[in-house]
Amino acid sequence: MLQNIRVVLVGTSHPGNIGGAARAMKNMGLSRLVLVAPEQFPHQEAWARASGADDILESAQVVATLEEALIGCSLVYGTSARDRHIPWPLLDPRECGSSCVEQVEGGSEVALVFGREYAGLTNEELQRCQFHVHIPSDPTFGSLNLAAAVQVLTYEARMAWLAVQGKPTKMEKVELTAEENLQPVTVDELELFFGHLERTLVEIGFLDPERPRHLMSRLRRLYGRSAISKLEMNILRGILTETQKAARGEIQKRREK
Amino acid sequence: MLQNIRVVLVGTSHPGNIGGAARAMKNMGLSRLVLVAPEQFPHQEAWARASGADDILESAQVVATLEEALIGCSLVYGTSARDRHIPWPLLDPRECGSSCVEQVEGGSEVALVFGREYAGLTNEELQRCQFHVHIPSDPTFGSLNLAAAVQVLTYEARMAWLAVQGKPTKMEKVELTAEENLQPVTVDELELFFGHLERTLVEIGFLDPERPRHLMSRLRRLYGRSAISKLEMNILRGILTETQKAARGEIQKRREK
Repeated sequence: MLQNIRVVLVGTSHPGNIGGAARAMKNMGLSRLVLVAPEQFPHQEAWARASGADDILESAQVVATLEEALIGCSLVYGTSARDRHIPWPLLDPRECGSSCVEQVEGGSEVALVFGREYAGLTNEELQRCQFHVHIPSDPTFGSLNLAAAVQVLTYEARMAWLAVQGKPTKMEKVELTAEENLQPVTVDELELFFGHLERTLVEIGFLDPERPRHLMSRLRRLYGRSAISKLEMNILRGILTETQKAARGEIQKRREK
Repeated sequence: MLQNIRVVLVGTSHPGNIGGAARAMKNMGLSRLVLVAPEQFPHQEAWARASGADDILESAQVVATLEEALIGCSLVYGTSARDRHIPWPLLDPRECGSSCVEQVEGGSEVALVFGREYAGLTNEELQRCQFHVHIPSDPTFGSLNLAAAVQVLTYEARMAWLAVQGKPTKMEKVELTAEENLQPVTVDELELFFGHLERTLVEIGFLDPERPRHLMSRLRRLYGRSAISKLEMNILRGILTETQKAARGEIQKRREK
């Protein structure tokens, strides 16, 4: 089950850190590593620091964008060192571990996302994460080594996983009919929705692309925390499609016929 | 108080690991590092990996024996990767963190002892420790990097310390501006929203009042579980108002002007 927790490293500068992260993952029983635009990979430094976690480096997926790295995930946890202007659901590493394990026990895939060594994740990248995770470091010296941060979060995931082992899984939540598809949507489906929502808001004149303010990030936060099911997503997308028709005057035309 | 938890590294081969350990300690608010017969120290690799935790390296105490490193400690926790022949009190990292903090809160000093990169601690050294600590790694790939092991144990010490101080393990939430009103809406405000939503869906032709099916109850379930804030409610109501205008052809009229 821990294999359904993927580790995503964004824009890593030092290949040694990629190796250190791979070793930490393998120590904790994780296996899936995704690298978004690493500066140097493959690189011998990565293999040296991996100390035998070669299989993880060899099967690591290298992609160009964070979006690609998150395909198929239902929840995304982004590590964040700094205060942000917009408050966001924030977890400590222990809560993150429990939350990840709860998801994967339910059959979903999740991602732990780590930013660049010096700059972390951008605000735009952080907005693609439903939860932000902060390792409670000393505020006067707050920035952990990348592999050390991977170690802490994967350790907490493993601790949570060990705790649930042997206990009954919490699968039987709601009786589902076939039609009532309550599987949560994946982040890529959520992104398609946000794109559709944004275009629609522009069409109806609610969102001014010249002065977007924080509108989309606020809507992302709202819908991001709602664990939208596939059925609900179909409804929301249907509403947007009809709204676009309205904005294009199709309803007026229909009435005039 | 965390300063009363010292980190003791025994017979470290790679100076880079000493630097990584120093960084992890400083991140977690610890400061006292003791090196027992390090193979190479001082060494530039240590300073490179410390990434600014120079003060910890500069004040590190170098001693010849574990005995000297432990002077003044009331409890000693030794990290152990393997099963030993002699049964010994064994803690997981979390229990180790709580135990350490309980000791230092009572005014004592304690030591976390880490062995050599390849061979760990000898049986004789482990017998000088009242407790053994094992990081629950995957049995098929059990050996953590030295700095990663220091990171996990000092992280757990910090988590335990934050808990007894009554300090949050999460960053304090950002101060909210008046506009950023995150107060949840009341049920009556939610009802007004559902009324507005229903009328709008009828206007855009998405909801047929003759055949409503379960549409509104599904949308109630979705928005009902989202703990919508007053700010978010203003946004949602604004979208509905603009959608109604679109349905009434006002956008078309605006364009035609």
